[in-house]
Amino acid sequence: MRAMAVADEGVLGEAIANRLTELAAVSDEPGRLTRLYLGPGHRKAADLVGGWMREAGMAVRIDAAGSVVGRLKARDGGSRTLMLGSHIDTVRDAGRFDGALGVVTAVEVVKAAFKSGKRFPFAIEVIAFGDEEGVRFASTLGGAKALAGRFDMKALDETGEDGVSRRQALVAFGSDPSRLREEALSPDHALGYVEVHIEQGPVLEKEGLPVGIVTAIDGITRGAVDVEGVASHAGTVPMPMRHDALAAAADMLLAVEARARARSNLVATVGKMDVPESAANTIPGKARFTLDIRSPSDEERTSAVGDIEKLIAAIAQRRGVTAKLSIGHQVPAALCDQKLSDQMAQAVEAFGIAPRRLPSGAGHDAMAFDRLIPFAMLFVRCRGGVSHNPAEFASPADIDIAARVLLTFLDRIAAQ
Amino acid sequence: MRAMAVADEGVLGEAIANRLTELAAVSDEPGRLTRLYLGPGHRKAADLVGGWMREAGMAVRIDAAGSVVGRLKARDGGSRTLMLGSHIDTVRDAGRFDGALGVVTAVEVVKAAFKSGKRFPFAIEVIAFGDEEGVRFASTLGGAKALAGRFDMKALDETGEDGVSRRQALVAFGSDPSRLREEALSPDHALGYVEVHIEQGPVLEKEGLPVGIVTAIDGITRGAVDVEGVASHAGTVPMPMRHDALAAAADMLLAVEARARARSNLVATVGKMDVPESAANTIPGKARFTLDIRSPSDEERTSAVGDIEKLIAAIAQRRGVTAKLSIGHQVPAALCDQKLSDQMAQAVEAFGIAPRRLPSGAGHDAMAFDRLIPFAMLFVRCRGGVSHNPAEFASPADIDIAARVLLTFLDRIAAQ
Repeated sequence: MRAMAVADEGVLGEAIANRLTELAAVSDEPGRLTRLYLGPGHRKAADLVGGWMREAGMAVRIDAAGSVVGRLKARDGGSRTLMLGSHIDTVRDAGRFDGALGVVTAVEVVKAAFKSGKRFPFAIEVIAFGDEEGVRFASTLGGAKALAGRFDMKALDETGEDGVSRRQALVAFGSDPSRLREEALSPDHALGYVEVHIEQGPVLEKEGLPVGIVTAIDGITRGAVDVEGVASHAGTVPMPMRHDALAAAADMLLAVEARARARSNLVATVGKMDVPESAANTIPGKARFTLDIRSPSDEERTSAVGDIEKLIAAIAQRRGVTAKLSIGHQVPAALCDQKLSDQMAQAVEAFGIAPRRLPSGAGHDAMAFDRLIPFAMLFVRCRGGVSHNPAEFASPADIDIAARVLLTFLDRIAAQ
Repeated sequence: MRAMAVADEGVLGEAIANRLTELAAVSDEPGRLTRLYLGPGHRKAADLVGGWMREAGMAVRIDAAGSVVGRLKARDGGSRTLMLGSHIDTVRDAGRFDGALGVVTAVEVVKAAFKSGKRFPFAIEVIAFGDEEGVRFASTLGGAKALAGRFDMKALDETGEDGVSRRQALVAFGSDPSRLREEALSPDHALGYVEVHIEQGPVLEKEGLPVGIVTAIDGITRGAVDVEGVASHAGTVPMPMRHDALAAAADMLLAVEARARARSNLVATVGKMDVPESAANTIPGKARFTLDIRSPSDEERTSAVGDIEKLIAAIAQRRGVTAKLSIGHQVPAALCDQKLSDQMAQAVEAFGIAPRRLPSGAGHDAMAFDRLIPFAMLFVRCRGGVSHNPAEFASPADIDIAARVLLTFLDRIAAQ
């Protein structure tokens, strides 16, 4: 197997884990990892990653959205480009793997290929996006949207908590926001986009698998339900005469849960529950809860939302309360490319690992390319499914497998 | 019927309703009724009510707890006293009937008897307590507890939001807190305590009855349940792998509700539900809710609390979360006196009204006399069961019935 020729077992995993440790020390705050888009940590991280890219044989630039782009030229002047990437911004008090794993793995895989003299019949661009977590500004995925030609220039006027606009932050970072439109890629020349990322969920760990192939990034329906009953004294109203808004909301929550449990490709969550003007000795007159419904299948999700609306209405009627479901934003599922994903699955199988396919319930930079260019994702097992937390962890052994799978995948694409 | 002799139908009801309107204009705040214990509204209300008592033939004093006490002497130097009373303090933005109805009805009934030349073989004391709502200080029922010899002198150091202590407020009101102990009544000379009060619940209205006889003031168990699961990303954790603290809490809430519904002499309420660090896209890791369980039967309540604890533990185990039930305060039920209540029921029947017996889910001044002297309560229907709200309403016709029932009751006690 050619992948073996350029990377002995364990070597890439150790190298990547070490660089993730080095990168994790670059933060906006002392003592914990926080690297907000275009902040001081991001600026230093961009330089560090840019240096690693150069060392891997790539020409490096920072684009108009603040993404670090390293380019390894194609063999024989090939005109197409395969993009590998993820992001180097983080949430506050983050783990060291979310985003950074995909960037560092791509750089180390390209480096291993480059150092061994391997060249590909297509250019490889490794992209370290900077705007995935959406912590600083209202909109997100600015880097990937710019590449996709989908960046909305109005977003330049968004300001964060510090009062600095996205436009000002880009200029301070050293980027030229007036050139954002020019970053749009040419779909004809793009072979696709491939992203390695920690799973951020518990499925691979539970099934004892180091990696898995993503089928789609889930579509989402976000909403809220306002329940109104009759507030009354907790002592004076017999149980059968109550119109308890919180009890009705609890009933609805369990109905949402049961509907989601009935299907394997669906999750539904009530994340917030508010009881305005509540007191221990008052039967709640109002309750409000959020809904977050996700599926890799838009049909499945739409059908669930319809059923949930009916279940909520039936519970409201039975309990003599009113319930109003407001749908917030809805995002369709972004399907991974069948062909790229099959090739990734075959690369996984080449290591004797069952090619588990699973959806991504979290959003990723790859979403920005939906229906524009083919994309695929490789998930890496993470301990306890924990993410957005300093306890986030993926083992060097699993990372090593992911890196060698990616190298094998590149060989397969090159050979086709 | 003797009652008819001193009060024609409708006369007492109109008089009481008019005085309630006059009293409702006495407030700490313009535009709404708020009369906190020992505040400026309470001070003016005490003078107003004291004047009405004098007009009704009573000697009036304000005791060491700020209660207004009017005393009508016994015929032939009888040595025993029957107390009638309720309270004239209110919650913020209150209705005009809660408390005031019982005080004004007692005064008007005594006045009607006095004006008609009727005298009783026992003294009658009408007491307007001032500390029933518990809005200003941490403890409550100070006036009734002083009479019961149960006032805890440590409560004098309690301070309200304005930084003024109960002791300072009593002195400013014109009372002498150092004499609180001296207010304790002699149980041997007390015939009992009788209170008229709006129901503050919907039972009498639903059954088409103007009045009802209280069996007991419910015992209460207050508690809180802390549920701890695992906070996770709302997209990445399949439904069967979740440990959702809020879903578990909803399940527990419905179990509490079902347990209370299974018995007619029990109510249970989850009034507050908090989800710390919640977000629409996060599976809740923690939830906390309150419990308020009431019954006129201590055995029933204790059994329900035990069952609820088991139900909560079973749900926690099934869902892989932990749940900790903390019991806050517990107050035993205060049983109304059988003999006094029977006489009240016979007085109700004398008007051709079915003598409905019902528990009081709310607390009242009468509780302070539990197991010390006999007490009874007469509930008056109120519209929609609404209380602690400007919309609180009892009709002059119902109030008239309550007043004439009370007069008949006094005659029955006098005749025994």
